[in-house]
Amino acid sequence: MSSGVGEVQSRFLEIATQDAPLKLRRGGVLNSATLAYETYGVLNNAKDNAILVFHALSGSQHAAGFNVEVPGLGGRWTEDCQVGWWDKFIGPGRALDTSRYFVVCANFLGSCYGSTGPASVDPLSGRPYGSAFPWITLADIVDSQVQLLDHLGIQRLHAVVGTSLGGMAAISFATRYPQRVGIVMPIGSGLMVTSLQRIHNFEQICAIEFDTDFCGGDYYGTDGPQKGLALARMIGHKTFVSLETIEVRARKMLNREYDFGQYELTHQIESYMLHQGRKFVRRFDANTYLCLMGVWQSIDLLADAAVSSFGELFEPCRSQRFMVFSIDSDVCFFPEEQSFMVKELRAAKVPVRYVTVHSQKGHDSFLTEAELFVPHLSHALEEDWWG
Amino acid sequence: MSSGVGEVQSRFLEIATQDAPLKLRRGGVLNSATLAYETYGVLNNAKDNAILVFHALSGSQHAAGFNVEVPGLGGRWTEDCQVGWWDKFIGPGRALDTSRYFVVCANFLGSCYGSTGPASVDPLSGRPYGSAFPWITLADIVDSQVQLLDHLGIQRLHAVVGTSLGGMAAISFATRYPQRVGIVMPIGSGLMVTSLQRIHNFEQICAIEFDTDFCGGDYYGTDGPQKGLALARMIGHKTFVSLETIEVRARKMLNREYDFGQYELTHQIESYMLHQGRKFVRRFDANTYLCLMGVWQSIDLLADAAVSSFGELFEPCRSQRFMVFSIDSDVCFFPEEQSFMVKELRAAKVPVRYVTVHSQKGHDSFLTEAELFVPHLSHALEEDWWG
Repeated sequence: MSSGVGEVQSRFLEIATQDAPLKLRRGGVLNSATLAYETYGVLNNAKDNAILVFHALSGSQHAAGFNVEVPGLGGRWTEDCQVGWWDKFIGPGRALDTSRYFVVCANFLGSCYGSTGPASVDPLSGRPYGSAFPWITLADIVDSQVQLLDHLGIQRLHAVVGTSLGGMAAISFATRYPQRVGIVMPIGSGLMVTSLQRIHNFEQICAIEFDTDFCGGDYYGTDGPQKGLALARMIGHKTFVSLETIEVRARKMLNREYDFGQYELTHQIESYMLHQGRKFVRRFDANTYLCLMGVWQSIDLLADAAVSSFGELFEPCRSQRFMVFSIDSDVCFFPEEQSFMVKELRAAKVPVRYVTVHSQKGHDSFLTEAELFVPHLSHALEEDWWG
Repeated sequence: MSSGVGEVQSRFLEIATQDAPLKLRRGGVLNSATLAYETYGVLNNAKDNAILVFHALSGSQHAAGFNVEVPGLGGRWTEDCQVGWWDKFIGPGRALDTSRYFVVCANFLGSCYGSTGPASVDPLSGRPYGSAFPWITLADIVDSQVQLLDHLGIQRLHAVVGTSLGGMAAISFATRYPQRVGIVMPIGSGLMVTSLQRIHNFEQICAIEFDTDFCGGDYYGTDGPQKGLALARMIGHKTFVSLETIEVRARKMLNREYDFGQYELTHQIESYMLHQGRKFVRRFDANTYLCLMGVWQSIDLLADAAVSSFGELFEPCRSQRFMVFSIDSDVCFFPEEQSFMVKELRAAKVPVRYVTVHSQKGHDSFLTEAELFVPHLSHALEEDWWG
């Protein structure tokens, strides 16, 4: 067992100023914006050993190692955040081997772990943006990270990797910047927003909007819509973790662990779901959640690339190599979605390898079951594995 | 096409008084309680031609014909309620042929269409029960309808039929009163509360509880938790209607049909779901929804019958005949649940026939696609079909 990357700190890059504002695809403008990011390993002289990792919906730039604190987050950097979310995957001798590769991970624009988002202070008003934060898109997120690569002097990535929503970001990057990456690895991801995702996401949006304490987004200085955000997380959680895993974990909960309300809790699964919701509220911001739901709901990879079919979308990717991962128990991005992705990639004559890992844990398997992903991940990073 | 049962009115039966209170399984007591019910057709002299129909979660006693108004519901009897929810199935010449059978349907105890529930006036206080209404169980609902059968002089039913949650009520009746029914027909139902149902139900419970306007259940005289109840319905709705049907219906919606909030609607599916939620609020009561969620979450057919296995549960049913319906696209009560039910029935040597109807509409197929159910329903009511 290797020791990992050890203690790390996040860094920050200004990506917009009054003189060089960031124009967003849905019409908004940011006159000031920052990306929080971390890097692990060393960029070689040729600057061709970099791997960009896109996190999932509620993730952060802190992918590996131990980060005691990201400054300025007002308590959101809880203990749950301190160990990198993909620490099992990144480090010397690990799948993304930092003795060979330079790994980069940035917090999404619009998120709340140091990149500019609705909870950030608007320099114009001196207060958090709240309802004044513009709507952003997945392409905006990807483009902001291209700025980061430019800043780091990385013209072409060895690989781009993304999990869940981050997998869609990886595909957005690969299709819109086809010359800038060699290997593309979406994990538990898809090409489109499915109707079921759209419905689950919209329920979460309503849970926040319908909370009186949301105050139309301008709740800073108060506790904010804690119940709405907790319910949103509960609704999402059941798509991230298999029912079997929820059942196992719930058995460890005491029933009626929580004060609740008029309804009397009847089952440990209820306590477990409440616990998930309440834990999340401590580490996340409701406007940010809404912002990223807006990102997800509006994803349109075809429109972003100004093409009308997936064949056209992938045509520029023929010099890339795709390694696609499915998780058989995934009910957030169903295996059918990756199967469709692979069919479209093959039809477009893009080199693709495709593996389904068998897990009982569901979508979040990519966070916890490194052993299932590491063999294919590490081999796919080797040029000669592709033949 | 037959003309149906025409105009009908609900009737009311007192099932509890100060002198004969209703003792409930979770410890509560009602010193006054009413059941609202309707009947169609004529009870024969032998009183052996009766069919009892149990409605689903948000249904009513009004199963067939046209009912202009149920008195005392304060606007909840909307146009959507006026045509009986199973009108296509009940009437002269229809599957439940009222020229031969006497069909009975009662509103669940705890519901809000004329039977006593949280929105009813508590004679002690002169105000709606609200938070003072006791928690009830499925067995309480079934037992209250046994009182109705006694009142009508029906010792033994020709058949009991139930859809969805009502199917579980039918099984509760059949297993606890095995001598009182010949034919048992659960449609889109199950034997247990599944983890997924438990999670979906709990999300709906939270949606209501977390709405500030819920006021712990004592919101009468105000608009009540309209947003919470609407969100609860949205969460439930996607399990009742297939994604394919939602997609088709949503295409007919104008996008941004609704004022919403800070979030800008991005897709017609969002407008469609909002529409479903808001429509429901006009015809249902939030405490009642919570009460019936409590009924569902606490279902335990084994405990109710004081047995420890489904084999024991069904042993007294060997003189009955079960006709079990699955809907292949059902994601509320999945076909696996009926398959399990049939396996247990067969193991217990209960005569059972089992059919899966193929529908693209999901769980609610039993409401709208009479043609899929009518052949087996009508044949199953004939003694000689069973051989």
